[in-house]
Amino acid sequence: MLTFNPSLTPSSQDNSLLTDLYQLTMAACYAGEGIAEKRASFELFVRSLPDNFGYLIAMGLAQGLQYLENLSFTPEQIDYLRNIGIFDHVNPNFWSLLENQGFTGDVWAVPEGTAIFANEPLLRVEAPLWQAQIVETYLLNTINYQTLIATRAARMRDMAGEKAILLEFGTRRAFSPQGAIWAARAALAAGFDATSNVLAAKELNQQPSGTMAHALVMAIKALSGSEDEAFMAFNRYFPGATLLIDTYDTVAAAERLAQNMETEVKGVRLDSGDLGELSKKVRSLLPRVNIFASGDIDEWELKRLRKEDASIDGYGVGTRLVTGEPVNGVYKLVEIDNIPTMKQSSHKMTYPGRKQIFRYYDNGIIKSDRLALADEGIESGETPLLGLVMKEGKTINKNESLNTIGQRVQTSVKSLPPQTHDITEPTPIKVNISQPLETLRQSLIV
Amino acid sequence: MLTFNPSLTPSSQDNSLLTDLYQLTMAACYAGEGIAEKRASFELFVRSLPDNFGYLIAMGLAQGLQYLENLSFTPEQIDYLRNIGIFDHVNPNFWSLLENQGFTGDVWAVPEGTAIFANEPLLRVEAPLWQAQIVETYLLNTINYQTLIATRAARMRDMAGEKAILLEFGTRRAFSPQGAIWAARAALAAGFDATSNVLAAKELNQQPSGTMAHALVMAIKALSGSEDEAFMAFNRYFPGATLLIDTYDTVAAAERLAQNMETEVKGVRLDSGDLGELSKKVRSLLPRVNIFASGDIDEWELKRLRKEDASIDGYGVGTRLVTGEPVNGVYKLVEIDNIPTMKQSSHKMTYPGRKQIFRYYDNGIIKSDRLALADEGIESGETPLLGLVMKEGKTINKNESLNTIGQRVQTSVKSLPPQTHDITEPTPIKVNISQPLETLRQSLIV
Repeated sequence: MLTFNPSLTPSSQDNSLLTDLYQLTMAACYAGEGIAEKRASFELFVRSLPDNFGYLIAMGLAQGLQYLENLSFTPEQIDYLRNIGIFDHVNPNFWSLLENQGFTGDVWAVPEGTAIFANEPLLRVEAPLWQAQIVETYLLNTINYQTLIATRAARMRDMAGEKAILLEFGTRRAFSPQGAIWAARAALAAGFDATSNVLAAKELNQQPSGTMAHALVMAIKALSGSEDEAFMAFNRYFPGATLLIDTYDTVAAAERLAQNMETEVKGVRLDSGDLGELSKKVRSLLPRVNIFASGDIDEWELKRLRKEDASIDGYGVGTRLVTGEPVNGVYKLVEIDNIPTMKQSSHKMTYPGRKQIFRYYDNGIIKSDRLALADEGIESGETPLLGLVMKEGKTINKNESLNTIGQRVQTSVKSLPPQTHDITEPTPIKVNISQPLETLRQSLIV
Repeated sequence: MLTFNPSLTPSSQDNSLLTDLYQLTMAACYAGEGIAEKRASFELFVRSLPDNFGYLIAMGLAQGLQYLENLSFTPEQIDYLRNIGIFDHVNPNFWSLLENQGFTGDVWAVPEGTAIFANEPLLRVEAPLWQAQIVETYLLNTINYQTLIATRAARMRDMAGEKAILLEFGTRRAFSPQGAIWAARAALAAGFDATSNVLAAKELNQQPSGTMAHALVMAIKALSGSEDEAFMAFNRYFPGATLLIDTYDTVAAAERLAQNMETEVKGVRLDSGDLGELSKKVRSLLPRVNIFASGDIDEWELKRLRKEDASIDGYGVGTRLVTGEPVNGVYKLVEIDNIPTMKQSSHKMTYPGRKQIFRYYDNGIIKSDRLALADEGIESGETPLLGLVMKEGKTINKNESLNTIGQRVQTSVKSLPPQTHDITEPTPIKVNISQPLETLRQSLIV
């Protein structure tokens, strides 16, 4: 049985084995060497932004914290590990750790909805080494994915303008049901108005949204004789619902609606053809309806349609929101037992030590970021971005609403200079490395 | 609380609301019009293959059938729908349907692991209209995604050759935890040897696999003074484990291993730099070890490394297996109440009627496919691909093992002519449209 339950009362205990095997073998090695409980700090960041991305919108922390807060191993899970033949030579201390401890560390993070750039930590885990190690996989999973979706959603909102209605329709193309739910959350937090996913809407206390599909038009036409019968039938049970008018001939359907249902029809959807041109023709026939468009919509298409003055009020966005090139966050050890560490593999150098991002604004626009050691002092006019969000395994200030996060996304995007929120070859904000951090880095090069 | 539980005893009832809102509004419209129980057939197919794909490997049916078999609406779910303000004008028959019926239809499908091409149905649902309608979203979700992963995995296996070890390491980059689990399943079914995801391995009765990470080397070096200490420590608890040797200087690490641990070391992993060149240098120093490589591996990189005779025994594959451009399957009404239907939107024409794929082989190699109406006779030498997999809501022949599916994938890939399993600008198999199907299509054009 290979599936996940969506559930109102999830027990994240079930996620304890949702990790890479090597996290557990390394933890066992730490236990054997007597270093499992040494205080370790790991930071999560991207080495570079995805192509054509000028910024990222941090997202996915809430699910990460929920996972950490509930992390524990059941006797059945421990038995499974004992008996798979991989852990036969480990020190028994390892089993004691799994049996007795959940996650007891601290987490520093930028709030969900914050704009961040390459090499800037979205999150730092400070915990006993073995704990900080085994949580890597799940934290990367939730933050990589939701950050991708939030950033795509913010870019789309930016290109569509504030007035356009943006609907998340991606479930059928999302990478698993849970992927669909997380995408809906991240999209709604980052500027979308609604999702078509009923379960996601329910769990997020939002109203789900949707129109109708070609199947309804085809079925009723086959059984009752006409496309118009389908429109009238749907309108009977869902008065004012948006009608899908491109099953056969979009303009002809709009002409008939204008003649027969002009007062009832409140919205139409176009799902094929030249959306810009069709929207203008439909507008001339049905001047007061909301016109929705769907079909491979992305930020570039939104920009293009806006530029050509398409007469479109709202968009259904699916495939190009929820799939595609990933955000490649990594999670690296930066300090162990008060000793700063860094990786030196070719082209994969990391910055050592526990860090803070100090952001400098000028008239509400980000001028520069300073990536510094966490204990460096703040300079005049700077804002530190990382804050303590979990203390000794307990989340501080839980349950930020989607609305709160959404306002932060809006403020974040507005704080970017124009060249940074371009969607093609943008210029990210300059991230300055502080002198103490650079000195430390130099001192550690072997 | 927005999460999913991985679970050994999932109740797919929880997935009933995992659908697009419009599926439920259309079902309510059908109920009101008295056509909800008309027999409908929907087929799931792709209009075109993704760029540079010559074929697809069908996957994800097992989860789709499990969903269908367990589909039902709880009183709490029905209450939720009644009270969201969207269904206020529907006919009460709709609620009776939700209360009283699960999925009672039949499903025809190609077996998981079958190679298929554009316009060929992977699956057909034949059921009361409302049921066939509401299951669209979940079926597309599972089949689109797992088919993508299986196809990528098959292409990678094809390029890596039969002897190479292929390990699925994608969890940290997968689009949600459930996305990671489904990716592991599809990859293992389509030619990968193991996954690093412990939960996926457990649920699939497989042995998880993994090496070690840079953090272990960095932590032990910081605390005990050397990279070699880290290698010895890990080998102490996991004798013969694969050691990650690129944290500082790959060749220097291999030289020291050759001097100090030559008899113990069984495997090394390279995760950065020029993998081909480094593998040869490491081979000259450690002739008997297994050399693993990781880092943005995909089918093109596998082909390139093989061409330059890299001395690599196995690969860890993550990001480029589990993310990227999707398979864009669609699910279209092809028949209602014995009346064939088709969509005629511009560039989105579909083929009407219930169909069968008849495959013609020549010496074990696919010569051509014939896309025909389901009731057309089989011609000499042809094999029909779609079979009945669910009858009146009950799955027939459950629980195909990953091994069985894997053998089918192997046979499928071997049956493709060379130009079809190219990974760059391949030529798909020719899909011939049968004369009766073409005649029917012509007769339905309005």
